Amino acid sequence: MSFHIARPDTRLTAALQHKIDLKTKPQGALGMLERLALQIGLIQQTLTPSLDAPHIAVFAGDHGAAKAGVSAFPQDVTWQMVENFLAGGAAINVFARANGLGLKVVDAGVARDFGERDGLIDAKVALGTRNYIEEAAMTPAERDTAIARGAALARELAANGCKVLGFGEMGIGNTAAASLITHTLTGTPLDECIGRGTGLDDPGLARKRALLKQAAERAGLPADAKGSSEHAQAVLAEFGGFEIAMMAGAMLGAAEAGMVLLIDGFIVGAAFLVAARIEPNILPYAVFCHRSAEPGHQAQLKALDAEPLIDLGLRLGEGTGAALAWPLVKAAAAFLNEMASFESAGVSERTEK
Amino acid sequence: MSFHIARPDTRLTAALQHKIDLKTKPQGALGMLERLALQIGLIQQTLTPSLDAPHIAVFAGDHGAAKAGVSAFPQDVTWQMVENFLAGGAAINVFARANGLGLKVVDAGVARDFGERDGLIDAKVALGTRNYIEEAAMTPAERDTAIARGAALARELAANGCKVLGFGEMGIGNTAAASLITHTLTGTPLDECIGRGTGLDDPGLARKRALLKQAAERAGLPADAKGSSEHAQAVLAEFGGFEIAMMAGAMLGAAEAGMVLLIDGFIVGAAFLVAARIEPNILPYAVFCHRSAEPGHQAQLKALDAEPLIDLGLRLGEGTGAALAWPLVKAAAAFLNEMASFESAGVSERTEK
Repeated sequence: MSFHIARPDTRLTAALQHKIDLKTKPQGALGMLERLALQIGLIQQTLTPSLDAPHIAVFAGDHGAAKAGVSAFPQDVTWQMVENFLAGGAAINVFARANGLGLKVVDAGVARDFGERDGLIDAKVALGTRNYIEEAAMTPAERDTAIARGAALARELAANGCKVLGFGEMGIGNTAAASLITHTLTGTPLDECIGRGTGLDDPGLARKRALLKQAAERAGLPADAKGSSEHAQAVLAEFGGFEIAMMAGAMLGAAEAGMVLLIDGFIVGAAFLVAARIEPNILPYAVFCHRSAEPGHQAQLKALDAEPLIDLGLRLGEGTGAALAWPLVKAAAAFLNEMASFESAGVSERTEK
Repeated sequence: MSFHIARPDTRLTAALQHKIDLKTKPQGALGMLERLALQIGLIQQTLTPSLDAPHIAVFAGDHGAAKAGVSAFPQDVTWQMVENFLAGGAAINVFARANGLGLKVVDAGVARDFGERDGLIDAKVALGTRNYIEEAAMTPAERDTAIARGAALARELAANGCKVLGFGEMGIGNTAAASLITHTLTGTPLDECIGRGTGLDDPGLARKRALLKQAAERAGLPADAKGSSEHAQAVLAEFGGFEIAMMAGAMLGAAEAGMVLLIDGFIVGAAFLVAARIEPNILPYAVFCHRSAEPGHQAQLKALDAEPLIDLGLRLGEGTGAALAWPLVKAAAAFLNEMASFESAGVSERTEK
């Protein structure tokens, strides 16, 4: 597994900051949008970034552990929601349409034979992962296939002019997988990484905790906040799912192609943790879009020292947080490109120093 | 002064909540957007709201106190920024364009004769307010004129099909006026309502505090968290400015016409405090868009028990926070209108209860 992600050359920082500071506004008055404009300029190595052909890719996959009872919803909801995506009726369809984002729906490993379908990218690795409570969710070969297919998808989007890729997912049981990954890659105690997912009640949450403890003990991988790429890859194969592995690959491929990455919430964040352990240079390409209501997401954000753009109490997935934050990212590039400077607008600068 | 704002009939609440709950997502998974969808449905008294012809109106006015040294920028910046708005180069121009919002620029009382200008609405009450450190900023008649002109503007927009009105302002020194208004209408200690505005340094902040203390003592109005409409109107006349008074009028007119109001940050919030004291029924029409970096804004939000949509450390004004939050408001209405239900999409509901 080899990705070549260039660390953005920071020699442009001063020129970008100067351009931002000369805009007709008090210095720093656009807050996080100013830091975002700087980041986008650095990613694209330009004072005039362009965020063409933005897309959200939603990766769907099933989890063997779902049948053990880690979710409030039955496993069939994964394929049913894929159908909903294809029919245009899910939240991510609505938000992508509202905000001018293209949408790609990817079957990474749903336990359902969809056949050939308009609008569905068939990248299926298998009909769902194995049950990680009893055995590894996927083989190393399956994991590598998932990563490679994700990277290929990102490269194809890049070849078609896509400069911004947001990530979303669907997979009943995948907050459980994300909890296990977050625990083993950040060192946060497992229970602090486990939440109610789609809405477990108290007994359901207790059951989820017991099952995930069992899975973590079975796998026997150390929880290591500074682990190697190999450790992260082992964690990924143990706990899956295919949608998470494929997202990690797509993130690595997208960063390699110089795209801006829109990182959604908890499950996408777990994929990003893996990708960042495989290639730490991916970090400057990531925009953290929203703060999920899932407790494990706080552990991820802390480990990554990341401050998301919005905090609306979302806990839906599908890339909805990325789609909702996208107008802020677009606005950051727009002010850098379009706002007048004090000089060009003939506006006086501050008198008090 | 008489406004007739209908309190939205809450008999529709159950039907709206039912529609929201049947969407293909776990209950509550869209967080604040769900509460926003409910609010919009109640404002429009429909299960299928439409947010046509959204606009931002930016009100500009000058403050007599600006020359006393309450701002880091010279007073001329007010008219220079109005020119910037007309030329399309300010942050609010960029964000309104990026997010599909119409923009109205209103001269409420700038200390400059613009003549007749394309794109500038001439509602000028006077060439700036008087210096409230020495005397009342405006006469009761001037205040009433400003309120009436704001209301007329909102009614005209409503007649042209506008369903959403965001508020923005420009006026060197107007964080100082907002501090005085916030103090007297919420009862928060004056110093806790005073911030650095466009970027005062420590001596500048100390000077601003001393001057505003002097102004508050001169005016001698009680700070009263539960004051009357008359008290709020007296406060408005004492501390101004014309852009704040005209915004309050526009808010009242817009709510009367059934519009959704996008409330920006600290200065717009001060106008809203006044409007809400004149007619408390305005509250359910307001969407609080962003949390300003100004400390006085926290006092306002606390007094109104309001939770804004975004918190990006903005301190620019111009309605930029409203323009940036608008896509979230649009998304809330869109999911209510466009998302499939569990039944229509053939998606299974939760198994665990």
